[in-house]
Amino acid sequence: MGRSSPVDLEAAIGVFDSGVGGLTVLNALRKALPNENLVYLGDTARVPYGTKSAVSVMRYAEQAVKALHARRIKAIVIACNTASAMALEHLQNCYPELPVLGVIEPGALAACKATRRKHIGVIATESTTNNQAYQKAILGIMPEARIQAQACSLFVALAEEGWHHGELVEQIVAKCLKPLMRGSESEGALDTLVLGCTHFPALSGAIAKVVGSQVILVDSAATTASAVKARLVSEKLLNPQQAPGQLSFLVTDGPERFARVANNFFNEQIDAAGVELVDIQHHTATLK
Amino acid sequence: MGRSSPVDLEAAIGVFDSGVGGLTVLNALRKALPNENLVYLGDTARVPYGTKSAVSVMRYAEQAVKALHARRIKAIVIACNTASAMALEHLQNCYPELPVLGVIEPGALAACKATRRKHIGVIATESTTNNQAYQKAILGIMPEARIQAQACSLFVALAEEGWHHGELVEQIVAKCLKPLMRGSESEGALDTLVLGCTHFPALSGAIAKVVGSQVILVDSAATTASAVKARLVSEKLLNPQQAPGQLSFLVTDGPERFARVANNFFNEQIDAAGVELVDIQHHTATLK
Repeated sequence: MGRSSPVDLEAAIGVFDSGVGGLTVLNALRKALPNENLVYLGDTARVPYGTKSAVSVMRYAEQAVKALHARRIKAIVIACNTASAMALEHLQNCYPELPVLGVIEPGALAACKATRRKHIGVIATESTTNNQAYQKAILGIMPEARIQAQACSLFVALAEEGWHHGELVEQIVAKCLKPLMRGSESEGALDTLVLGCTHFPALSGAIAKVVGSQVILVDSAATTASAVKARLVSEKLLNPQQAPGQLSFLVTDGPERFARVANNFFNEQIDAAGVELVDIQHHTATLK
Repeated sequence: MGRSSPVDLEAAIGVFDSGVGGLTVLNALRKALPNENLVYLGDTARVPYGTKSAVSVMRYAEQAVKALHARRIKAIVIACNTASAMALEHLQNCYPELPVLGVIEPGALAACKATRRKHIGVIATESTTNNQAYQKAILGIMPEARIQAQACSLFVALAEEGWHHGELVEQIVAKCLKPLMRGSESEGALDTLVLGCTHFPALSGAIAKVVGSQVILVDSAATTASAVKARLVSEKLLNPQQAPGQLSFLVTDGPERFARVANNFFNEQIDAAGVELVDIQHHTATLK
């Protein structure tokens, strides 16, 4: 493994997202790894990432992971599809001594396991869609898969504003997914749809109504948590302590807003007073 | 005026916004001041500002204006309601030798001129609404005014995605404005509504349908341009050149996306190749 010093097994897993969306992954990590300490960093000062360029996302992600690395950390989870699509390899190169896992590969794997007719849809932010990370990851596992991708940037705002259910939300979702469903008609029906943004599970009820019950919805949260657990087991990094893991939260802006919006995504109550404000923008990134 | 050197009258007016919304103000400036050179800076690397904290917005605005100030600039227009609400005074203190104008005072003035029964609604981003800048500015002009404010953060995403018209947009607008309209019923009807975010004029047709034709919609664009013109006249800063003014565009991220989305807001075609990418995040701000 090439580590220069013994690993601190009680150290936390650092979980990074552009804002609150990664809390859907944090839920799954809590469930899969209840004894692990978790420290979550939301880069709320620069959210959203999904409409920003690759260079900006790589730089922001590097600064965020640098801030997490300065804490007691034994592994990093990039709980943001856009950052995983654009910055995972770069971050793995920056921290070769740490497991650094993203959400795209686990999401692609879940889709390939779920699909019956190998016709997979992917909805994501504009940046993730343009980057084609899901398409590449799915084709890497299942070269014969047919894939249709659709950017749905509006879903991020809907999810953050708490617009998750109801007829109007379904109409908005239907309008956004129209090109995807039209393609599905002409090229044969999709059977699986990847929710390729951590915000989107909040809208899964509305999305399911629009695409129909025959389409299996897949998100990365549970499979990412499984992948993290498998990696900790294989690298003998599990926390030997049997007590419930500690949770801590860092944000780069607005702890009160974070705590309020977080309740749309996270299963446990977050108290704004316990959310620490950190400044990461001064961290030098290798990318200018 | 206390300027240490003669003013360069052919210098540009620097226009700053968090992203593309300020282009609605740029349209009005082009119309009111056709011979002035204008340089527009959109902080697309950190857009939106409307859900961010006062300290972050002040810091971002200071960095942006510093970047504009490094060019040939004779005046600054803060063409963003959130930045005007939170950072105008700070920026005026940073650059006492330059006219630095925001959009809130002109918007408040326009509302006070338009209102018949002194019952004014304000819709804006979450940050502008919480900051109460419009409320204070309106009450400063018209102390007896009754004001109702409502945050409509979702409108920013709608405007940027090009969702401006149609039945579905009207339904979304109606849902967002429901608390405002309900208050309007119980406290007597609003007669004037301030579009307190530079993105919102893109949705004005839908907003007008929802609030009804008896409500006058007011935005800051035209009144801000008039205020800028009056200030240039009074300070003898008008460009003596009679040729059409030059336009230039700076962004902190994604020139291609900027040029594409800009077409939803700006009356002239913007070519991505002519949009300059600048890095302002390294600029030291006085606020940490």
